Amino acid sequence: MMHVPDDVVAGLRSRLGPGRVLDDPDTLARRSLDTWPLPLVQQVVGREPPAPSCVVRPASTEEVSTALAYLTGNGIPVVPYGGGSGVQGGAAPPPGAAVIDLGAMDQVLALDEDNLTVTVQAGVVLGVLETWLGKRGYTGGHYPQSIDLAQVGGLVATRSSGQFSTHYGSIEDLVAGLEAVLPDGRVVRIESQPRRAVGPDLRQLWLGSEGAFGIITEVTLKVFPRPPDRWLQAYGVGSMRAGLDVIHGIMRDGWKPAVVRLHDAVEAARSFRGAVSEGECILLLLSEGPEGYARAEGAAIDARARAAGLRPLGPKPVESWLEVRNDVRELEKYLRRGVIVDTIEVASPWTAIADIYEQVIHRLVEEVPEMIVASGHSSHSYAQGTNLYFVLGAQPLRDADDMARVYEAIWARVMETTLALGGTISHHHGVGRFRARWVPQDLGTSYELLRRLKGAFDPLGLMNPGSLLPAELAPLEPHP
Amino acid sequence: MMHVPDDVVAGLRSRLGPGRVLDDPDTLARRSLDTWPLPLVQQVVGREPPAPSCVVRPASTEEVSTALAYLTGNGIPVVPYGGGSGVQGGAAPPPGAAVIDLGAMDQVLALDEDNLTVTVQAGVVLGVLETWLGKRGYTGGHYPQSIDLAQVGGLVATRSSGQFSTHYGSIEDLVAGLEAVLPDGRVVRIESQPRRAVGPDLRQLWLGSEGAFGIITEVTLKVFPRPPDRWLQAYGVGSMRAGLDVIHGIMRDGWKPAVVRLHDAVEAARSFRGAVSEGECILLLLSEGPEGYARAEGAAIDARARAAGLRPLGPKPVESWLEVRNDVRELEKYLRRGVIVDTIEVASPWTAIADIYEQVIHRLVEEVPEMIVASGHSSHSYAQGTNLYFVLGAQPLRDADDMARVYEAIWARVMETTLALGGTISHHHGVGRFRARWVPQDLGTSYELLRRLKGAFDPLGLMNPGSLLPAELAPLEPHP
Repeated sequence: MMHVPDDVVAGLRSRLGPGRVLDDPDTLARRSLDTWPLPLVQQVVGREPPAPSCVVRPASTEEVSTALAYLTGNGIPVVPYGGGSGVQGGAAPPPGAAVIDLGAMDQVLALDEDNLTVTVQAGVVLGVLETWLGKRGYTGGHYPQSIDLAQVGGLVATRSSGQFSTHYGSIEDLVAGLEAVLPDGRVVRIESQPRRAVGPDLRQLWLGSEGAFGIITEVTLKVFPRPPDRWLQAYGVGSMRAGLDVIHGIMRDGWKPAVVRLHDAVEAARSFRGAVSEGECILLLLSEGPEGYARAEGAAIDARARAAGLRPLGPKPVESWLEVRNDVRELEKYLRRGVIVDTIEVASPWTAIADIYEQVIHRLVEEVPEMIVASGHSSHSYAQGTNLYFVLGAQPLRDADDMARVYEAIWARVMETTLALGGTISHHHGVGRFRARWVPQDLGTSYELLRRLKGAFDPLGLMNPGSLLPAELAPLEPHP
Repeated sequence: MMHVPDDVVAGLRSRLGPGRVLDDPDTLARRSLDTWPLPLVQQVVGREPPAPSCVVRPASTEEVSTALAYLTGNGIPVVPYGGGSGVQGGAAPPPGAAVIDLGAMDQVLALDEDNLTVTVQAGVVLGVLETWLGKRGYTGGHYPQSIDLAQVGGLVATRSSGQFSTHYGSIEDLVAGLEAVLPDGRVVRIESQPRRAVGPDLRQLWLGSEGAFGIITEVTLKVFPRPPDRWLQAYGVGSMRAGLDVIHGIMRDGWKPAVVRLHDAVEAARSFRGAVSEGECILLLLSEGPEGYARAEGAAIDARARAAGLRPLGPKPVESWLEVRNDVRELEKYLRRGVIVDTIEVASPWTAIADIYEQVIHRLVEEVPEMIVASGHSSHSYAQGTNLYFVLGAQPLRDADDMARVYEAIWARVMETTLALGGTISHHHGVGRFRARWVPQDLGTSYELLRRLKGAFDPLGLMNPGSLLPAELAPLEPHP
């Protein structure tokens, strides 16, 4: 891929002013990666990822507009960079691309306590915002594991889902309005309304856009008064299938407990050793809401769980999960030792989910000789189905190509098994660069709609090329 | 506008087989109108709307595809026609257009009791489906007033909202999957998944598409086990402002009662005469859900209502509303006498809604001399705001141009006042032909996104031209 010519970098500098355009080796190296495990683990054995040509750090929507119009006008591919917490390579720039880093746009702009929204610049770190809201008696209801790293714009662009999503919804339920810049520099704003019937919901174009259509610069999120009431309970369960059946029943009844997590026996033994028996799975439940809500929901759930023969374990395992839930130091430690560790989340209708769980684990253990651990849990449930979140580790390898081979062997089995059984390839990590190859199969005939969107918003194919739509299939013209 | 040439009609007949292409005067007359009040009332004084050139009644997705490809290939504008219950002229064809009437595609295809979905052809009447589901122990949770006329595809295309939407959500929350045909005949299917993070939610392109991008042929809807538990209560309220404050509090707490309706004093006196005092507004509430839910929600709401000094009226007014809620015979009677009667629904954040209510009523009464009644209610609430539904009547007129003048005078005041105070022009009736003129102002800079979508999916501008996007602004090329 082309390198950004020096005169283009100079032109950008003259348009944006001092300090906005960086191309020192340190900055370029820091923006050559997100949290995609494959290149991270390959770095341990000396393979360095390609660096971008330059990093732009705009401080305003106007500067994003200026930068984007100038770069695309010069035919330069652009990669938007948020908190760098994406695990699919969506922010890992192709060689020579320009990175637009939103990190300097980190202001909370307005809290509207009457209409329960907060408006922020796209580069605000979610954890910072949540703390800010907490001091004022509110919560955003959105707690992905990446909360202390991820920025709001990136969470919108990658269709994030939080740990309490079963009650509060995922990011598409939480975005009230937004502002974005199209590749030609045009700024579009969608103002918050409780509901509109004025054509399709235009916010949805940006929820999952992954930088492929433009750059999100401002987001208005819903906020919630901090709930007064909470109910916690854990249960021991004989098998994943039995636990999934209980969750299915709770969802079918219409309850929406904030946390519904079913960890398999491997994970239960790893993280809840004192609480579970040998071979037992664990179900964690947490309800919260207005006065009286959690009590009613908890009572109904508890009755259903006991009727199904689950073993009550009290609230302690939920409390201990709440404390450690965002601690990924263990995973990082393994990565630094050259061990491939990764997480893969998929989803499916209820009728397929237990089969996907069993077949994925079986295939990984049987068919990938390097596999050393394969476990899974369900953590986001709906009346129509649920997700699975696999946690996977392979033995340490000393060769970068070997790492790529094993990594692809693992992923291919999870993706193929999920698709074959009727699931979808991603619940909430998004697509990025690595997962893009399976997108056409996941979307089937509706992939054509995504191609048309790409053509309508990025006809030159300069926005985050290779991400979301597989590179060889991304259209360069509006109507292929 | 052009007339469909005879040889094109003949070509269509030869491709679709007998009985599929109709051009007898009766059929053409019946498909020249939907439920848009202006042409309906103008018919009373002898003004007949322009008729379409032909009406195609496909029986399958394949036939829709054949018809659409052939018509657009010959440059013929196409108007999709569902149940004809739209009140904005969205299915009132421009002169000479071809109508594709989905009424023969009326089959329920599959009920999936495990994954709680039902898949139907787009032409199924919602009321028929609801009865079908009821016999099997389920509900769709979607009850617009048009339930006995409207078809599922049309409800998706117009962003319908039902009377129980505060609990079950509006149509965008209820569509699990769908199938549509693009103008060139290409069929796209979006399969149901509990959630996907594989690019933008492609269903959303069709929710509010109003026939502008293609034709919806099949829909998978969520279903719910019929709720075991219900709580009903009505209250007398001193003013709309006081009633809106109470609803705001309920929503802020996080409760989601299925029905939350606040009728102003004019409507309360008209429909709940025995229950309310002189000048009193009425608040109707209904909760339903799993065992224990309605009781908890009802208790919390009742405490809030009493604390705000509302006067409890018992469940009777809610029961009587449930009985008569879909009866529009009164309105139809007036229309047939040459009286302009219409309903206009808007929405706004909480901070603007009482001002919109008061100023709209004030302006209509003061500035439109022909006005004889102007009332309103709020019927769909959210934590971020609520809607207003105005019910309007003007004195009988004997001249069609006069009718148009008065009709436009009424609409202009409601739209302008709503926009000036920060609301949105439509909550759930959609845009159609008549409201399209206010769309650019409603969407502001984000109107560009809608133009891009139109260009991407209907580059020739043949799909329901003049609806959704105002005719003079609809792009004929993908990138204007």
